[in-house]
Amino acid sequence: MRFFSDNAAPACPEVLAALTAANVQDTAYDGDALSQSLDARFSELFETDAAVLWLPTGTAANCLALASLCPPYGGVVCHREAHIQADEAGAPEFFTHGAKLLLAEGAGAKLTPDAIRAVIDRIKPGVHWTQPHAISITNATEYGLAYTPQETAAIGALAKERGLGFHVDGARFANALVHLGCTPADLSWRGGVDALSFGFIKNGGMGAEALVFFRPDLAQAARVRRKRAGHLQSKGRFLAAQLHAMLDGELWLRNARAANAGAALLAQAAGPRLLHPVQSNALFLKATAEEAASLRAQGFGFYDWAPGEIRVVVSWDQDAAAVRPLADAIARL
Amino acid sequence: MRFFSDNAAPACPEVLAALTAANVQDTAYDGDALSQSLDARFSELFETDAAVLWLPTGTAANCLALASLCPPYGGVVCHREAHIQADEAGAPEFFTHGAKLLLAEGAGAKLTPDAIRAVIDRIKPGVHWTQPHAISITNATEYGLAYTPQETAAIGALAKERGLGFHVDGARFANALVHLGCTPADLSWRGGVDALSFGFIKNGGMGAEALVFFRPDLAQAARVRRKRAGHLQSKGRFLAAQLHAMLDGELWLRNARAANAGAALLAQAAGPRLLHPVQSNALFLKATAEEAASLRAQGFGFYDWAPGEIRVVVSWDQDAAAVRPLADAIARL
Amino acid sequence: MRFFSDNAAPACPEVLAALTAANVQDTAYDGDALSQSLDARFSELFETDAAVLWLPTGTAANCLALASLCPPYGGVVCHREAHIQADEAGAPEFFTHGAKLLLAEGAGAKLTPDAIRAVIDRIKPGVHWTQPHAISITNATEYGLAYTPQETAAIGALAKERGLGFHVDGARFANALVHLGCTPADLSWRGGVDALSFGFIKNGGMGAEALVFFRPDLAQAARVRRKRAGHLQSKGRFLAAQLHAMLDGELWLRNARAANAGAALLAQAAGPRLLHPVQSNALFLKATAEEAASLRAQGFGFYDWAPGEIRVVVSWDQDAAAVRPLADAIARL
Amino acid sequence: MRFFSDNAAPACPEVLAALTAANVQDTAYDGDALSQSLDARFSELFETDAAVLWLPTGTAANCLALASLCPPYGGVVCHREAHIQADEAGAPEFFTHGAKLLLAEGAGAKLTPDAIRAVIDRIKPGVHWTQPHAISITNATEYGLAYTPQETAAIGALAKERGLGFHVDGARFANALVHLGCTPADLSWRGGVDALSFGFIKNGGMGAEALVFFRPDLAQAARVRRKRAGHLQSKGRFLAAQLHAMLDGELWLRNARAANAGAALLAQAAGPRLLHPVQSNALFLKATAEEAASLRAQGFGFYDWAPGEIRVVVSWDQDAAAVRPLADAIARL
Repeated sequence: MRFFSDNAAPACPEVLAALTAANVQDTAYDGDALSQSLDARFSELFETDAAVLWLPTGTAANCLALASLCPPYGGVVCHREAHIQADEAGAPEFFTHGAKLLLAEGAGAKLTPDAIRAVIDRIKPGVHWTQPHAISITNATEYGLAYTPQETAAIGALAKERGLGFHVDGARFANALVHLGCTPADLSWRGGVDALSFGFIKNGGMGAEALVFFRPDLAQAARVRRKRAGHLQSKGRFLAAQLHAMLDGELWLRNARAANAGAALLAQAAGPRLLHPVQSNALFLKATAEEAASLRAQGFGFYDWAPGEIRVVVSWDQDAAAVRPLADAIARL
Repeated sequence: MRFFSDNAAPACPEVLAALTAANVQDTAYDGDALSQSLDARFSELFETDAAVLWLPTGTAANCLALASLCPPYGGVVCHREAHIQADEAGAPEFFTHGAKLLLAEGAGAKLTPDAIRAVIDRIKPGVHWTQPHAISITNATEYGLAYTPQETAAIGALAKERGLGFHVDGARFANALVHLGCTPADLSWRGGVDALSFGFIKNGGMGAEALVFFRPDLAQAARVRRKRAGHLQSKGRFLAAQLHAMLDGELWLRNARAANAGAALLAQAAGPRLLHPVQSNALFLKATAEEAASLRAQGFGFYDWAPGEIRVVVSWDQDAAAVRPLADAIARL
Repeated sequence: MRFFSDNAAPACPEVLAALTAANVQDTAYDGDALSQSLDARFSELFETDAAVLWLPTGTAANCLALASLCPPYGGVVCHREAHIQADEAGAPEFFTHGAKLLLAEGAGAKLTPDAIRAVIDRIKPGVHWTQPHAISITNATEYGLAYTPQETAAIGALAKERGLGFHVDGARFANALVHLGCTPADLSWRGGVDALSFGFIKNGGMGAEALVFFRPDLAQAARVRRKRAGHLQSKGRFLAAQLHAMLDGELWLRNARAANAGAALLAQAAGPRLLHPVQSNALFLKATAEEAASLRAQGFGFYDWAPGEIRVVVSWDQDAAAVRPLADAIARL
Repeated sequence: MRFFSDNAAPACPEVLAALTAANVQDTAYDGDALSQSLDARFSELFETDAAVLWLPTGTAANCLALASLCPPYGGVVCHREAHIQADEAGAPEFFTHGAKLLLAEGAGAKLTPDAIRAVIDRIKPGVHWTQPHAISITNATEYGLAYTPQETAAIGALAKERGLGFHVDGARFANALVHLGCTPADLSWRGGVDALSFGFIKNGGMGAEALVFFRPDLAQAARVRRKRAGHLQSKGRFLAAQLHAMLDGELWLRNARAANAGAALLAQAAGPRLLHPVQSNALFLKATAEEAASLRAQGFGFYDWAPGEIRVVVSWDQDAAAVRPLADAIARL
């Protein structure tokens, strides 16, 4: 049983069914009815005017958001271990034409207003030093921690005070949201968020994420940038169809709840091995090399994270029942 | 009945079936078996060592190829009406970091060695003028003309003589190939081509094109650039599956033959209205505004191309039988 | 006697004297008094609020202006033979991060509103085609023609109507201005110009041009871009000193008048050989290869421009008396 | 008396004299004899084949070097406090089209092979993480420390072993060199250096630095990039003249010795206040706010560096005699 990454999971049957349903001749690019109705669909979900672009990867969504919020000569504050800094091969620099990521610290890859101020307050004004133009956080974080609405809003207030854009990398937004039990609005624009990379692929989608702008004035240039980056797929209806399918009947919430429940069960088994509280679908555990080998020998797959640490990610199709064998194995260690 | 663009067509049932078959837990990105076998699969098809990247759009394939063949400070010779110049919103400039497109002339958007020499021979050596580093042609061209193996090889020889890279935008490569009745090798590396954007989406695919490098040394950096451009999809097996499905049982050839046959039937009906020979699946016709309106009134959809000119594109699912009503309507004009 | 380019001329003695006078310890970069007073000095000259950056080349001035007026995904309308298109090695693409130059036609490298409309009116709206964001003209043009205040204002009105920025490459702004006998304001902001590359180097300077913004809100980001492009010289006072020296006592006007007078004398001698009216300090003449060789044999240096055409440029230090030998030689041909 | 920065110092009389001597009509750009002889002149100085570009700033020299050694998708290892990271406003990202600076640690802004390995050894292979392509060190460092030939060679050996380019930011190369008493070759190519930003402006120049390539194959593309970045000055002879003047009669060495001697005298006075050994012309001292105020009240200018720390930089025109008043004042604190 594999717990390497939620990227490795299959797509939901509902998503495949939506592809089949969308497989008719239609207007190319994003001229089809499914694409054209995304703004309305997400506006309803978020209880505000939103403008939405489908994109095939979280990297593209994140980087188009950053390019919308930061000029080439500006800086984006993010955590030292943020995905945009650590795992995207310089994509933010590519899309922004060389903006600098300004690295902040915080346990569990989580930022606070104080941590952000520690970075931006030491930047002198003037042309010799890259000035901050935006803040980017990941919710849930790279270590699975969820920013609450209050924590989000505190960062949003700082962003507003300093005239900075505010982006959320929500590759696992659904997992954070169901953990917190709040609304999508609470974790986004009500907290001052300008742009959200709303992840679906790790949560049962196939190849479609949503970039949601809560400042719709930013969307038009982003649509141009999407084309210019080769991301305006000619049969875009197949991406839109996936997003609609995920929202239909709250599939996205059910999937996230299932994965979180699996993670919660594992967390219970792991107890003092946990390196971080489990607030979404990822666990980071202390495990010796021998313990890791023992788990692998029992058929469980996962990544080593650091010496003496492993990462276990539960997918939408691995609910509490499915993960029980691993839970038992961990408990037995 | 719509003849706007082959982009508007649905995907083949075989492609959808392949997605379903690939819908299992697997290694993320391009680590899955389907992705990993693409090099071998296309090497066999092209009868030479090839390195292949899946990509979701022709724009991305074209532009990664150009970035692989031309430095930021270089130039790429292409036709004034080439898709990369006319319809990609500056994507080549984005991916290459500002390389210049050096525009050549030729009827039907087709280049010849002479037309290319007319551009590059007037560029003085020295640092003040952008020097050419690559040539890009489109086969079939934007007006549906096919470069023969001989024509391709003549340009390839010029490229080699001048030390230039050679790229083919093959959005409708299949249509050109079945028209000519030659092998994939004849239209590519045997003619000196370094990189081919091998189109599948207009030919019945859903969202996967193949960027084929005949100089495999170029592929590794291109893979890095793919990631950096947000094009490394995490569930890449779904793109690889589409490419395999298109190659299985020569589906790509059957689809292209069907579309070409439809176009040929229309060409017969159009007779002297034809603005260009029909060598693939697109027709450009003389038609007055009244004639165009008459066709539309009969339920046919297509684009106006220029005053007194219309464009009709036949898709893989519109074979000779399917296009007969339009052929009859054209003949009646 | 050399008439290759006004770039080849020495610097004015007044400019060298200003360097000596500025050679004291002072605040680095542009913090010195000479740099800090440029805004006021040029505001007075232009009779409006202007913000001014010194730069070491016209290329840098032009390209920073374009980057200020056009986003990476936009287009700049200019003449097909504009210096920014033909002779700057892709520098506009570098500074703008890949914006496209949209090429217009016109005799003598001169644009008109109609010529510009012919380019921008054929660009369909939508994300597939690079949309225009700015217009750039060269005054005097690459063929020595001067745009009058009325001609400038007509283009400025079009720019305003379409929401486009308006840049003037004034590498030989002084020469155009003294030919027309108008004020600097007449040839710039009164005609709707947003940014002017005000050339001094060809007119007797050593290594300092002025980028003048008539929309001072654009200047701050341009100052950041200047630093980022490596153009914020640490001993910037030496550039500012040159600009002040050129403005002192109207040296810039005297130099331009001298060069224009030399060109006028040559024009008189050339008579029907002239390919363009002479409205600044450059002449383009019909001359057979034998005639060109004959002039060279007499000690005159100049560039061949095209078969049967030569270019002669008169510098600030080559007044009517100095060019008489060449005038006589041309008359004798 | 001002000790803010060696950027604030005047230029040497010899440099001004060279400008006057060069002030004749000559070939534009770098076609003049002074520019054309730079390769030979520096090759002699460095006892190897070198290719040299004049540039107006160290920022431009550094960033052209980095763009020559690192592709847009690559990384450059440098110290967290390196000038290219901390004080150049993202210029490296601009010139390299978004390469990432990979930050290493070390006292006094000095790198060691171990410090570099600590950065690059934790980068996993693969397309998700920016791979290192070059190393950049500053000699003397931002804190005035000199890398010895042995220390340079140790880093050069690591670079070679890992296939990385090796750049030295030598804004104060002369100061390091005279401190060490070695040859230019010892501190550059003999230690594996590929490209050196050889600073003259802080050492008595006016506006010319030398970018020295010890791999002459890199120079041609760098010359194109120089043009494209607006750095190919049309009267380039005035930059070449400065470099020749600085080399004539070992002026550059005399100037550096004078500044270092001043710094050494101050160091003696400062004794235990020194935060770093003084190995060039900059001192970093412990000084309370009251002590700093006292020095300022006596007419001495300098920058606060950090709470309780000040920076004092001695210029080429401030020799031991000139700095004695400050030495005495420091001793009296």
